[in-house]
Amino acid sequence: MTESALPVFDMHPYLWGNPQTPGELPAAAGELLSALGAVAPPAAVDIADAVLPASTLPAAALDALVAAVGADHVRFDHDARVRHTGGFSTPDLIKLRTGDGSAAPDAVVFPADHDEVLAVLAACSVHHVAVVPFSGGTSVVGGLTAARGGFTGVIALDPRRLDRLVSLDEVSRTAVLQPGLRGVRAEALLDERGYTLGHFPQSYEAATIGGYAAARSAGQSSAGYGRFDEMVETLTLATPRGTLTLGTAPKSGAGPDLRQLVLGSEGAFGVITSVTVRVHPKPVSRIFEGWRFEDFAAGSAAMRALVQDGPLPTVVRLSDEAETSVNLADPTAAGSAGTGGCLMITGYEGTPAQTAVLRAGATELLLAHGAESLGEGPGEKWRTGRYRGPYLRDQLLDVGGLVETLETATYWSNIERLKAAVTEALQASLGANGNQSLVLCHISHVYAAGASLYFTVLTTADPDPVAQWGAAKAAANAAIRSCGATISHHHGVGTDHRDTYAEEIGPLGVGILRAVKAELDPEGIMNPGVLVAPGLVA
Amino acid sequence: MTESALPVFDMHPYLWGNPQTPGELPAAAGELLSALGAVAPPAAVDIADAVLPASTLPAAALDALVAAVGADHVRFDHDARVRHTGGFSTPDLIKLRTGDGSAAPDAVVFPADHDEVLAVLAACSVHHVAVVPFSGGTSVVGGLTAARGGFTGVIALDPRRLDRLVSLDEVSRTAVLQPGLRGVRAEALLDERGYTLGHFPQSYEAATIGGYAAARSAGQSSAGYGRFDEMVETLTLATPRGTLTLGTAPKSGAGPDLRQLVLGSEGAFGVITSVTVRVHPKPVSRIFEGWRFEDFAAGSAAMRALVQDGPLPTVVRLSDEAETSVNLADPTAAGSAGTGGCLMITGYEGTPAQTAVLRAGATELLLAHGAESLGEGPGEKWRTGRYRGPYLRDQLLDVGGLVETLETATYWSNIERLKAAVTEALQASLGANGNQSLVLCHISHVYAAGASLYFTVLTTADPDPVAQWGAAKAAANAAIRSCGATISHHHGVGTDHRDTYAEEIGPLGVGILRAVKAELDPEGIMNPGVLVAPGLVA
Repeated sequence: MTESALPVFDMHPYLWGNPQTPGELPAAAGELLSALGAVAPPAAVDIADAVLPASTLPAAALDALVAAVGADHVRFDHDARVRHTGGFSTPDLIKLRTGDGSAAPDAVVFPADHDEVLAVLAACSVHHVAVVPFSGGTSVVGGLTAARGGFTGVIALDPRRLDRLVSLDEVSRTAVLQPGLRGVRAEALLDERGYTLGHFPQSYEAATIGGYAAARSAGQSSAGYGRFDEMVETLTLATPRGTLTLGTAPKSGAGPDLRQLVLGSEGAFGVITSVTVRVHPKPVSRIFEGWRFEDFAAGSAAMRALVQDGPLPTVVRLSDEAETSVNLADPTAAGSAGTGGCLMITGYEGTPAQTAVLRAGATELLLAHGAESLGEGPGEKWRTGRYRGPYLRDQLLDVGGLVETLETATYWSNIERLKAAVTEALQASLGANGNQSLVLCHISHVYAAGASLYFTVLTTADPDPVAQWGAAKAAANAAIRSCGATISHHHGVGTDHRDTYAEEIGPLGVGILRAVKAELDPEGIMNPGVLVAPGLVA
Repeated sequence: MTESALPVFDMHPYLWGNPQTPGELPAAAGELLSALGAVAPPAAVDIADAVLPASTLPAAALDALVAAVGADHVRFDHDARVRHTGGFSTPDLIKLRTGDGSAAPDAVVFPADHDEVLAVLAACSVHHVAVVPFSGGTSVVGGLTAARGGFTGVIALDPRRLDRLVSLDEVSRTAVLQPGLRGVRAEALLDERGYTLGHFPQSYEAATIGGYAAARSAGQSSAGYGRFDEMVETLTLATPRGTLTLGTAPKSGAGPDLRQLVLGSEGAFGVITSVTVRVHPKPVSRIFEGWRFEDFAAGSAAMRALVQDGPLPTVVRLSDEAETSVNLADPTAAGSAGTGGCLMITGYEGTPAQTAVLRAGATELLLAHGAESLGEGPGEKWRTGRYRGPYLRDQLLDVGGLVETLETATYWSNIERLKAAVTEALQASLGANGNQSLVLCHISHVYAAGASLYFTVLTTADPDPVAQWGAAKAAANAAIRSCGATISHHHGVGTDHRDTYAEEIGPLGVGILRAVKAELDPEGIMNPGVLVAPGLVA
């Protein structure tokens, strides 16, 4: 099944993915966890039974919201509120699984267009209501939980009614997309016209165009199609102070590139209401294949050669020895023995002539770097299973596992040091309480000067798994900072990374963000606590 | 001669380029101008006779500057001041040619390192002295003339003592460069180690690394090596409030990309004191060749196919019919008849295998788009003559010509409309006084979604050529804005484009820049009047 043919569905607030195709824990993965000594926790609380705080919105604020979007598009019911509670970090999930809905918004507002978004933000500014832009709801960094302090209430602003492919420019190869459009739906609409966006993050089944832009999403085909922030040509931001429209040419020498200030702003400056993105003729040829490298160093040297000297495949992904050994690149077989060594996946998309040239050049380079071809089998398994990985987390949590991911990026000369430092920090923290852990790693985004590192951690849950993970995560963050790497390659800042991010950009960097926020959002209502500490503005 | 072997020289303040190899006006170009009815103006005033204002710096400010950098590195003499007066826009040149040195700084300060830059900025903040970062001095948009209002004086900060290749990371393929390093010198230093930066703007003989970064320079090989703003991995900015260090990975999902806020800030936020840039193994194979297209539409369609479908050459440049007809791509023959139709230059650099693959693919595509091969002759003429074009301007001014360039960029579907609108606006404005004009255009930077348009205008000078050009430029700016294009693809904002730029980014965009400037430069001393209107900060 191609990406554009996947179904669109409403995701459960603490169970990942399509409810029609729930995850199935491979026996081997369950056995692996049992061997680590996991003990199943109490069953997860049904969301209908989650405890939400009373809605505190003042009547005047409600009236203003109703005036902005119409009574039919302001919801206060339990179901709407619980479905806009938190994101998909493991701590967020654990909280909601125990029935703790304290992070629920007081109301959910569904504006129909840019002007209604402006009206909502104006109303919330006047009435001191915090606004959490909430679309796909897939944040894994606490990006969807407003700091309530000082506000009369919190609303979730769900842009799902802004869900159109507005226009397609086949000469410039750009499309104007609305923010509430789900990635799957955007692909389907573009596919009808013969195009693809080429953006396939792990959250593809649920995430939206606005979320991709606000959080600097990176898709699994980033080598071929670029990151989402690289695809955006123009954008419109609705702010409490009005409309900011940016982008007049692919590249400009006229001042700073302010588009890059809005991309990654995570709802803290306003709501992205439109983006113009580059699109590509849909590929008619797709080839995915697997390779085995002796070790991670050999595989990453080959990846570096692919990106520095070319040709660069559309997809390139390298699992380290640990990830390869538990077969994580094939979720249907996770936990069973992998190929040994390190598994690399390469993918080529385009016209038959394009993929032939790419594949021939890349094959020559990989073989010269000592790769052993595993054929198309592992490539297809990865391709068809690539959105299934996160489903396993829910089943692992059910049986007493603690699973979480984190990621970073650095320059090539620093990759080995960073990988070792993060791995050691995680294992030391988790081991301090006597828990055994598996720390798996892969590279899935490469650049001429460096690459991302993506870690998957599996261990047994302590009685307080949120605190347990908090300590491990803090240790990993410290290791990342001590290596001079970035606190996130594509998960974002949210609230979870905020303090480490402040160290990364320094006091003047934080000052810039505060100054921009004060300019666009003088009342500080936009996603307070995300990106920069709350209470610093207004 | 390759780029790394070019000499480093001090440029005259109103004569372009290497004083050892002054421009020679091709006879045909002179005849062309005579045919337009040019009348030679008075001879240019020797810079020793230029009239500079008395230096107004208060003694306390001088003492502080001397304390910051040492007495040997603060200069007040006529020569130092006049050599830091204005840039290379035609209005800047005309002013200085008439002996008007009113834009001269009161002093020129030469800090040795980052800490000395910080000390200079701190001293100037305390004493309310405006600071113009001045390195190559090649701004063509009034980027080097501080608004004096409210300040006790103006200094030029010349970073020429920060001129080192600090380090080279051969694994990540990055180099740490200081801002005062001239482009030519950077290439020579990298060449010794087997690398190239690949950045060759028209100002290459004079411009510096810091200027490239501060002004979002785009080089003639941008198709292959990218723009300068795309090459920068990390940077350090000295501001009046301290040091901002940005860049922890090639790409990050941690918040906005603040590097892109500093790139293009044109000295208004601080002084860039270090950049880490990507470098490339120096090419062993270089092939440049010429092509003839029936018309501009056919040529630009071929360019678009090269960048959208590939393979993209390292250099690609298309002259329109008018530019082709006066042979502007070969400055030694400018004014004589060109090839007819539209001339395209393509260049391929890399290993022999890389250039062979690129050239074969591009050749097939170009032939399919109706190109006629002109062989390597026109390609080599362009390559070897490519820095000589601006030399001709001085000779044309001598004989009563008025020559200036301007540039913009837009999306592919808007290219023809923009080109026609700017051409018509220029010709209408210049024709209103009865002057005949030539408006020539080329595309020299291409992107998947759009391209730049670079215009060269030649006409006869009125008695007040600054006012004459001012009117023409205003008409062109209005045409650019009415087409929704950017006011500059790579020349920048400076003071000349400031008002049009404000329209381009809107009041909230200007508000963001003001807020950032107020945060980093609360006294508003940094290049006041550049980028945003003066007096809006502090």
